[in-house]
Amino acid sequence: MTEAIYAQRRDKLRGLMRERGLDALLISRDANRFYLSGFELHDTQLNESSGRLVITGDGRDVLATDARFAVAAARLWESDRIFIYKDEAGDIARLLRNCGSRIGIESRGVSLAFARALGGAGGLFLQAADGLVERLRAIKNTEEIAALSSSFALNHKVLGWLEQSLAEKGFAPGINERCLAWAIERFFRENGASELAFPVIAAAGVNAALPHAVPGDDKLGENNLLLVDIGCRVNDYCSDQTRTFWIGEKSGRAYARFARVHALVYEAQQAALAMMRPGVTGREVYGAARAVFEKAGVADAFTHGLGHGVGLETHEAPSLNSRNERPLESGMVVTVEPGLYYPDWGGVRLEYTVLVEEDGIRVL
Amino acid sequence: MTEAIYAQRRDKLRGLMRERGLDALLISRDANRFYLSGFELHDTQLNESSGRLVITGDGRDVLATDARFAVAAARLWESDRIFIYKDEAGDIARLLRNCGSRIGIESRGVSLAFARALGGAGGLFLQAADGLVERLRAIKNTEEIAALSSSFALNHKVLGWLEQSLAEKGFAPGINERCLAWAIERFFRENGASELAFPVIAAAGVNAALPHAVPGDDKLGENNLLLVDIGCRVNDYCSDQTRTFWIGEKSGRAYARFARVHALVYEAQQAALAMMRPGVTGREVYGAARAVFEKAGVADAFTHGLGHGVGLETHEAPSLNSRNERPLESGMVVTVEPGLYYPDWGGVRLEYTVLVEEDGIRVL
Repeated sequence: MTEAIYAQRRDKLRGLMRERGLDALLISRDANRFYLSGFELHDTQLNESSGRLVITGDGRDVLATDARFAVAAARLWESDRIFIYKDEAGDIARLLRNCGSRIGIESRGVSLAFARALGGAGGLFLQAADGLVERLRAIKNTEEIAALSSSFALNHKVLGWLEQSLAEKGFAPGINERCLAWAIERFFRENGASELAFPVIAAAGVNAALPHAVPGDDKLGENNLLLVDIGCRVNDYCSDQTRTFWIGEKSGRAYARFARVHALVYEAQQAALAMMRPGVTGREVYGAARAVFEKAGVADAFTHGLGHGVGLETHEAPSLNSRNERPLESGMVVTVEPGLYYPDWGGVRLEYTVLVEEDGIRVL
Repeated sequence: MTEAIYAQRRDKLRGLMRERGLDALLISRDANRFYLSGFELHDTQLNESSGRLVITGDGRDVLATDARFAVAAARLWESDRIFIYKDEAGDIARLLRNCGSRIGIESRGVSLAFARALGGAGGLFLQAADGLVERLRAIKNTEEIAALSSSFALNHKVLGWLEQSLAEKGFAPGINERCLAWAIERFFRENGASELAFPVIAAAGVNAALPHAVPGDDKLGENNLLLVDIGCRVNDYCSDQTRTFWIGEKSGRAYARFARVHALVYEAQQAALAMMRPGVTGREVYGAARAVFEKAGVADAFTHGLGHGVGLETHEAPSLNSRNERPLESGMVVTVEPGLYYPDWGGVRLEYTVLVEEDGIRVL
């Protein structure tokens, strides 16, 4: 992205701030910070910030960070609007007091301790202002769609390689989940991914009943299922896809059960995809998939939402679930991933990610 | 770790809770949760919890999580003490109301939004209770020291391989930082690491002035410096080491400046190591390294703390900096990493991690 795009995004955000009557907004979430400035996509550790932005009413936005990032900041931000803090909350409170009286903070993006320290410094009227940047981020521009397309192209390439390798028994017999996960990760990294979007899920047999399974020592079984949920980052943007494969002979009772569950999940996914277009709500799309499972009497085995936005983060707005009453809009990118899980047997999940367009959707 | 060790840790924590007059403590930080239960080392995403623990006065501790993790929870926790929530804050508030009147929460481990929702549910007297588990975690037991030793053994192996490869020009001439970082990551992963402890820092020349440099397209230069800060995870425990190499002829003015800076950083590191033993404070150790830089008139180029604890997280207690007045104790594991940074030139950082023992230290 160019600096002009970042500046444009900050101006749009200023519009949303005015609607809320905010004089300034403190941006703390790392993906939001990066979206608005290009500065540091990741915080160094969960509980350590790499820096925050202060978006001001007059457009003289400030990048606040600590000494470790001073040189990195100077490479992309005007030096007179870089603020280096030592006492993080105290110094930022001092900075904010010069920015007006009504200051928004991301209550989902700051710790209670930081918020208390900020408020405790005095002289500030802080109010929660979540989701403003997330709302902008939910609609992707041309450059973002290009980056997402590259990320998903690589994801498809990995899935193609994986499916072929499984079919040709290209992996050593009895490879375990952990080794398979590493083979997948290595393929991603050696074909253009800067990192994984999230740890590879490679769940054999009964482990597929865990929607967030961690690959372990269990081996891929002959005549058993394998669930693979994978994503990478290319040009800063994430991809996310899931397939559930059958390994072995496609006959017999074990396969028949897999095929039945797989067909139901596929039907639910198709029902959801068929109705997606601008104006339809997340709740309605979720309901279409769920209705398939209800009709088949298996809805209890569908234990999570149907989908989530994908962009700079693997999980972002919008959600496809029973609570989201907001209509889809053109430019949104969202996963469609119904699943059925049986603790004693395993699970099947199928996930495509789609771009919402004026007249429907396009699978990425 | 065995379930007996987790139970013992929770009992120790109960002792600390009693000192503070807490009836229960809600554990939200992922590493703390894992330390006390073995459940899910990582949250799925920065803003999404994989579950929380409620440590109670009577020892009937509860593991609270959502449906996605129900099967994983059932694999290691008694089923009648697993609590599956849908409305995270509301349901957990309901759970906590049965646990007594004084409830501790980790104010550095929960978002402001979550804390407000919890408090807003009513009927709870919440108080910040940070650092209790971190205090326990700062002292490593035999099993943890064994895991850390394995993690650091691999780290040394990677550094040995790297140094040799650089000396023998084993990398393609003109390899860039990004490719070098991937070669290092791959070596870690194919030699026993479950993951990196943090993204590889491989900073060539002037980029070494950024303490948290992100590897990019810049190439390793002949007759220039290379800073490498790397860590992996083995048996759940992190390692963390930094070296700064000179690539090319060890002669000429450019090398002379590097050698001078390197020697100073080494001297500062040795001064710190020489005084470390139980009873010495983090501030004193930091001061010993800083004094070397002050004497040489370069203290302004030392822009960060001297060290941090290492364990389940790369950054944990204790810190070696100007503010830590707590004495070191036997069983602590801490980095010693002085550095000098010059934006127009680069930087040198050297980092060992040491175990504090009864009579001194042992370099891991």
